Amino acid sequence: MKKLINDPTAVVGDALDGMAAVHPSLSVHRNPDYVTRDDARNTGKVALISGGGSGHEPLHCGFVGKGMLDAAVPGAIFASPSANQIHEAAKHVATDAGVLFIVKNYTGDRLNFQMAADLLRSSGIDTEVVIVDDDVAVEDSTHTAGRRGTGATVVVEKIAGAAAEAGLPLAEVADIARRVNDNSASIGIALTSSIVPHIGQPNFDIGPDEIEFGVGIHGEPGRRRAALRPAAELFTDMANAINSELELQTGDEVIAIVNGLGGTPLIELYVMANELAKFTEQHGITLSRALVGSYVTALEMTGCTITLTRVTSDLLDYWDATVDTPVLNWTPTS
Amino acid sequence: MKKLINDPTAVVGDALDGMAAVHPSLSVHRNPDYVTRDDARNTGKVALISGGGSGHEPLHCGFVGKGMLDAAVPGAIFASPSANQIHEAAKHVATDAGVLFIVKNYTGDRLNFQMAADLLRSSGIDTEVVIVDDDVAVEDSTHTAGRRGTGATVVVEKIAGAAAEAGLPLAEVADIARRVNDNSASIGIALTSSIVPHIGQPNFDIGPDEIEFGVGIHGEPGRRRAALRPAAELFTDMANAINSELELQTGDEVIAIVNGLGGTPLIELYVMANELAKFTEQHGITLSRALVGSYVTALEMTGCTITLTRVTSDLLDYWDATVDTPVLNWTPTS
Repeated sequence: MKKLINDPTAVVGDALDGMAAVHPSLSVHRNPDYVTRDDARNTGKVALISGGGSGHEPLHCGFVGKGMLDAAVPGAIFASPSANQIHEAAKHVATDAGVLFIVKNYTGDRLNFQMAADLLRSSGIDTEVVIVDDDVAVEDSTHTAGRRGTGATVVVEKIAGAAAEAGLPLAEVADIARRVNDNSASIGIALTSSIVPHIGQPNFDIGPDEIEFGVGIHGEPGRRRAALRPAAELFTDMANAINSELELQTGDEVIAIVNGLGGTPLIELYVMANELAKFTEQHGITLSRALVGSYVTALEMTGCTITLTRVTSDLLDYWDATVDTPVLNWTPTS
Repeated sequence: MKKLINDPTAVVGDALDGMAAVHPSLSVHRNPDYVTRDDARNTGKVALISGGGSGHEPLHCGFVGKGMLDAAVPGAIFASPSANQIHEAAKHVATDAGVLFIVKNYTGDRLNFQMAADLLRSSGIDTEVVIVDDDVAVEDSTHTAGRRGTGATVVVEKIAGAAAEAGLPLAEVADIARRVNDNSASIGIALTSSIVPHIGQPNFDIGPDEIEFGVGIHGEPGRRRAALRPAAELFTDMANAINSELELQTGDEVIAIVNGLGGTPLIELYVMANELAKFTEQHGITLSRALVGSYVTALEMTGCTITLTRVTSDLLDYWDATVDTPVLNWTPTS
């Protein structure tokens, strides 16, 4: 196991301390661990909170900031944060406008966010939970009943974050988040496995000419073991899997994420982005916005996920709205 | 060789086409290949141009935009762009205020940028060349007379870009760029090698418990083959190598880059950032600004480089000035 770490059991804490040192816009709380936008509550604005296992950086802490998350709650590597941890984070940022939890669909995350939501409600804080389940690879999976949540989480967090910043009430922000999830589909491929630090062994074995088609972001099995082929062919298979779910029509507009899984160099992601552009052009789809980079990772796994979100102009306006986080940072061009 | 590519000889072109599809703020020109900020010249502003071999993404194309580069010129993987290619890019963005070339210190890059500078001057365009040679690992190296240029390139491009945007004349922008380089030092470590697509074999062999201390961004040998150790010990060795050059004093302020070499997951870079914060605190140095991520890469090589730049308040103001590129994007906080 070759990693830039100290004690394998201290990786998450060390990384959080590192984040605290370099991102003055974040408040990093330890024991319990959570990261907030700042120490002030944003009164009158719905508070957005997400979280999940660590090892997927920059998700979720890198998306804390104006126009996106108010708090992120990191668990141990590939393990849900505790209900108590989520509850503490939520209490820190909750406002009279209520709390929205954005939760990737894994059994542990659902359970712990649900328990935290019950605790908040019992103390009179209006709380909604939105589940992200965009990964079309498999219906049920290791750690999951129903589809897994992956790349669309970033789109949900951005668009719901802008809706909350615009002052929409909780029910409407939650509706918008669910609309984004319902219009999103993702699929991933892995070329190599990751190694969880405290385990020290690859999550799965894979041959030198093989890929896992439909891999999960913890290395969970996908649809099939397949041969490594040229990027154009791999992309076509991925796009077809996505589109058999989304059923995009000529004239549709999409936001796309070409996402590296942690160990993938950027030049390869741009090669995949070129295949994406060919696909959208061939199908008469407008590639309205795209992110190319490593946003939802699986430690050092190589490979990528592709996420497409069908958008209407209102969702696109929320996407374009001002955001100020360590990772996404822009103001609308006038 | 496991890569998300098509034809191994077409990787750079495919990636440039992908960039064109997803970054509307960039104009991607093909044959000869170069990327410009937009199709308009920024009259009255010194034009900043950088470039070098591909395989180091997002360097340099990801730093094209307002407040940073006017053009970037990518060569083949790990190979200098041609003098003609550089000259064409420069002609596209040159203004009456002149042209500044920012060149990493590799023999091929120096030669070709120098030839392009001569061509520009012969057609009456005032041109300065600034060499970046921040890598303290070795004095001479494969492809290099003198020290190699690595992570400080980003700092030079950002600060000189802001100085140019502020309307400073060519000689002053060049002086500022040289001041940044003179106050910067970097060193890298590799845990694994990269593979150049059209070669198909690792650049170097390295054992399962070994690192290359002082590696170059093309996998060039550094100071020594050493044992993999905890991040804190590796960081201390790197910081000492840097500091024996910079001789930082209590009270100094630095900009730091904790840079992944392409295959390194972000969580490990934050672990290294935590070691950086301990180092600066122990030495009474102010960590004024820091970037943590993969900015100057070597394809899928794992490991990192650390760059420290000693800054004064004027340089820090240029660092904080508005920048709008695919990678760095911020406005000063008031």
